[in-house]
Amino acid sequence: MGQTVEELVAGLERGERRALARLLTLAEDGAPERLREVVARLHPHTGRARVIGITGSPGVGKSTLTNAIAAALRAQDRSVAILAVDPSSPFSGGALLGDRVRMQSHAADPHVFIRSMASRGHLGGLSFATPQAVLVLDAAGFDDVIVETVGVGQSEVEIAATADTTVVALAPGMGDGIQAAKAGILEVADVFVINKADASGAGKLESELRGMLEMGHALADADTPAGWWPPIVRTVAVRGEGLDDVLDAFGTHDAWLASSGRGEQRRRERALHLVREIALEQVRLRFARLDGGDDPLLEELADRVATRQRDPYAAADDLLEALDGGEA
Amino acid sequence: MGQTVEELVAGLERGERRALARLLTLAEDGAPERLREVVARLHPHTGRARVIGITGSPGVGKSTLTNAIAAALRAQDRSVAILAVDPSSPFSGGALLGDRVRMQSHAADPHVFIRSMASRGHLGGLSFATPQAVLVLDAAGFDDVIVETVGVGQSEVEIAATADTTVVALAPGMGDGIQAAKAGILEVADVFVINKADASGAGKLESELRGMLEMGHALADADTPAGWWPPIVRTVAVRGEGLDDVLDAFGTHDAWLASSGRGEQRRRERALHLVREIALEQVRLRFARLDGGDDPLLEELADRVATRQRDPYAAADDLLEALDGGEA
Repeated sequence: MGQTVEELVAGLERGERRALARLLTLAEDGAPERLREVVARLHPHTGRARVIGITGSPGVGKSTLTNAIAAALRAQDRSVAILAVDPSSPFSGGALLGDRVRMQSHAADPHVFIRSMASRGHLGGLSFATPQAVLVLDAAGFDDVIVETVGVGQSEVEIAATADTTVVALAPGMGDGIQAAKAGILEVADVFVINKADASGAGKLESELRGMLEMGHALADADTPAGWWPPIVRTVAVRGEGLDDVLDAFGTHDAWLASSGRGEQRRRERALHLVREIALEQVRLRFARLDGGDDPLLEELADRVATRQRDPYAAADDLLEALDGGEA
Repeated sequence: MGQTVEELVAGLERGERRALARLLTLAEDGAPERLREVVARLHPHTGRARVIGITGSPGVGKSTLTNAIAAALRAQDRSVAILAVDPSSPFSGGALLGDRVRMQSHAADPHVFIRSMASRGHLGGLSFATPQAVLVLDAAGFDDVIVETVGVGQSEVEIAATADTTVVALAPGMGDGIQAAKAGILEVADVFVINKADASGAGKLESELRGMLEMGHALADADTPAGWWPPIVRTVAVRGEGLDDVLDAFGTHDAWLASSGRGEQRRRERALHLVREIALEQVRLRFARLDGGDDPLLEELADRVATRQRDPYAAADDLLEALDGGEA
């Protein structure tokens, strides 16, 4: 509890799990100034991990797939951290049953770390906390950091902004037409995995998906050179089938990221994404500080808007002007 | 298409559905400057509608319940607008099957309006678009505006910030313990509805819920006067059972809002919520404008962060300083 950020960072460098867990808690819901110190101290030690995002609708077997991918990576002697991000739950820190079940299968292995994270704490929620938790796991020295999240709302886009390689998982027989048609999915996928591929409808799902990819490709700017065509891999994660193909797809994508220059570009985009999220959080904190202090400006704005003397956009202008003048 | 905002507002005042639909589309994904004009023009004509939020996990029968509540309100001769907010879908405008099925049951009734809204368009997503869509429906003169959303992530909190009365819907046999334990639910509910109350487990769910409410009450500040104790109402929405009790609960809550002064307070909080969302969107737009223009500052920040010469928090400070200096 009473440990300073400096002590925690030193503990992380010695490979202490407890220090890692505490730093992740700070990323999830720590005080802004402590988190700032954590990130400033850890940032120089980051940039080595490969970040893999896994997303998909509820019911496609994402957790099982993530577990199986982690096991396959371990078999290649890579150390793996799993960050299970659940935008629908306020629970975190491995409190959920599913998490405990998972942990058991890797319990004896010190090179697998599993952590679940929920949408509480910071004002900006998971879009603010996730990239900072990834930064902590990267600094901890894991070869692969897997970020798993249910595909809801903006979460697919967020995950793609954080990952080197984004996996979109699908499964037959779950209203897949609609699943695949989700605008976000085609845009963000580097690799498609059709899980539960032994179930009927897997072939149909793959055909549909190929059709959509071809249509998307035809619509895209034809002279984009060296584009990436997301492979479609079939797995039965619960029986460990198809995992070699998934790892091959990761390897091919890694090579493409390096040769095309897109890897470098993504890392710059990811840096900018993090900077933008932090800046937005600072703005939210400025608002919250105004709110908490019974600021006469806010009282007056609320009154004037509620009584229809001032329209909300004009009031927002007033608010921003006060913030710009006030300073954080 | 080519209509000005002024023409659309005039159409809305004449009760034209097409003008209403166009204005809602602007709220969902219109250009910032047009939306600003819409809100500025409509805002003086708002503040009359009662806004009812309905939230709950997938599978509790929210759409059926919403439909049944709308029918019951219509039987009291109130005009009703339903805004179905789906954070998991990029579809909108009534394109989904469920929406079309729903529309049929009210198709002949010009005093019921149904619209679904999805998370696309504005940078701030649904938390930005929803209160502005409610503002449009309020200005259109509906007695009741029902905002229905699946309880995922922050959506419960958002809905409570927009509604006069927030309904949390539950159903037996869906891992209800966890449902009810969700931190957001107890905080935001003004009325609990146990739907599918003819299924086994309804009594157990109600007992669990009462237990949690009592515990929450015991923990709350004891000298809070005139507190609201959320009633628990049982319905079988698919058969239209229990709806009178739901409407009674709304009436009792209305009376409490008026007598306690909380209604006035909520309207001020709602005004402030909208102002804050608009201000945040302005900040996001300023960022986006920097991004789009290949600004040398952003290039430099991305480079320096990606190469670990500058930490992300220091870069965020640089970014905010540039924004404060630059102006929107």
